[in-house]
Amino acid sequence: MKSLEEKILNEGTILPGNILKVGSFLNHQVDAAFMMEMGQEIARLFADEKVDRILTIETSGIPLAFAAAYYMQVPMVFAKKNRTGNLSGELFVTTIFSYTHNVDYSVVVEKKYIHPGERVLIIDDFLANGKALLGLSKIVHMANAEVVGAAVAIEKGFQKGGDTLRSQGMRVESLACIESMDDNSLTFRA
Amino acid sequence: MKSLEEKILNEGTILPGNILKVGSFLNHQVDAAFMMEMGQEIARLFADEKVDRILTIETSGIPLAFAAAYYMQVPMVFAKKNRTGNLSGELFVTTIFSYTHNVDYSVVVEKKYIHPGERVLIIDDFLANGKALLGLSKIVHMANAEVVGAAVAIEKGFQKGGDTLRSQGMRVESLACIESMDDNSLTFRA
Repeated sequence: MKSLEEKILNEGTILPGNILKVGSFLNHQVDAAFMMEMGQEIARLFADEKVDRILTIETSGIPLAFAAAYYMQVPMVFAKKNRTGNLSGELFVTTIFSYTHNVDYSVVVEKKYIHPGERVLIIDDFLANGKALLGLSKIVHMANAEVVGAAVAIEKGFQKGGDTLRSQGMRVESLACIESMDDNSLTFRA
Repeated sequence: MKSLEEKILNEGTILPGNILKVGSFLNHQVDAAFMMEMGQEIARLFADEKVDRILTIETSGIPLAFAAAYYMQVPMVFAKKNRTGNLSGELFVTTIFSYTHNVDYSVVVEKKYIHPGERVLIIDDFLANGKALLGLSKIVHMANAEVVGAAVAIEKGFQKGGDTLRSQGMRVESLACIESMDDNSLTFRA
């Protein structure tokens, strides 16, 4: 998505350790109109897939998942990190390793919010090592539902996550895929 | 907002301890079309206020803040709980006490995402004791910006938060205000 690549080039900043900061429009400050455009693009990409539901994970995936859910006219569910007092009822639970924080955390979804047989699209803001998408797809499978694919705003194509998931048969769409990145520049996968 | 009151009556469940669960459309599963209607209503309520920016807090406030930001055509910022490795730069930091989890937590916003003199609307999903709105308004003041008011989906009117903030001069709008609640029923403030 050309407009996303341009926004990354214009507004993104690169920090040591291959960290790309896009807090001006994606995951701290949010540009709602642009997020809606990205959601519409995801709806277009998966228009033929008869998606029943969108699943994301708190926090940064929520705006994009919301925008796609609006255009696809399906419910969106966000998985919660850690169990809280307000999450009663039966839960699907899995564990995801966070490279950012170097820790395992639990991720839960109430069972009543994914139904057997549903076709689920997984959405997140970033794809790097793929652990979040993998954990969410485990939850979909626990529900005896089907993963139709995953969509992310920005894929770090130089990390293994996206291509590993694709090699396992998952359809993975990224609106912008960074082919390489160093402290001063980045290039996109064509 | 009549449609929200109806949705609460039809889909909400009450748990012991005055806990109202509305995870079917507000804060676990999200009904994007309905959320957009609520965002549009907030935009209507604050149409005369020349709002420059919307501020919310992760996680559950994000969809409503996003929807309102879309209609008001202003940037939305979500405050983050705890500092993470990806939040570099200078930060506004405050502490909010969570009654749900019985713990103080830090809330941060990068300084570059609230500018001096801006007119900021604070949005959240729930208003009970008002600690979250108060913490967010502190951050707005740290930025030498102005709080034009706060909007929430559901106010627990039988707790003190909303009326305390109003008595301090803050404009607080709730799309549905619960006057009373027991284990079997609830009534709305007219």
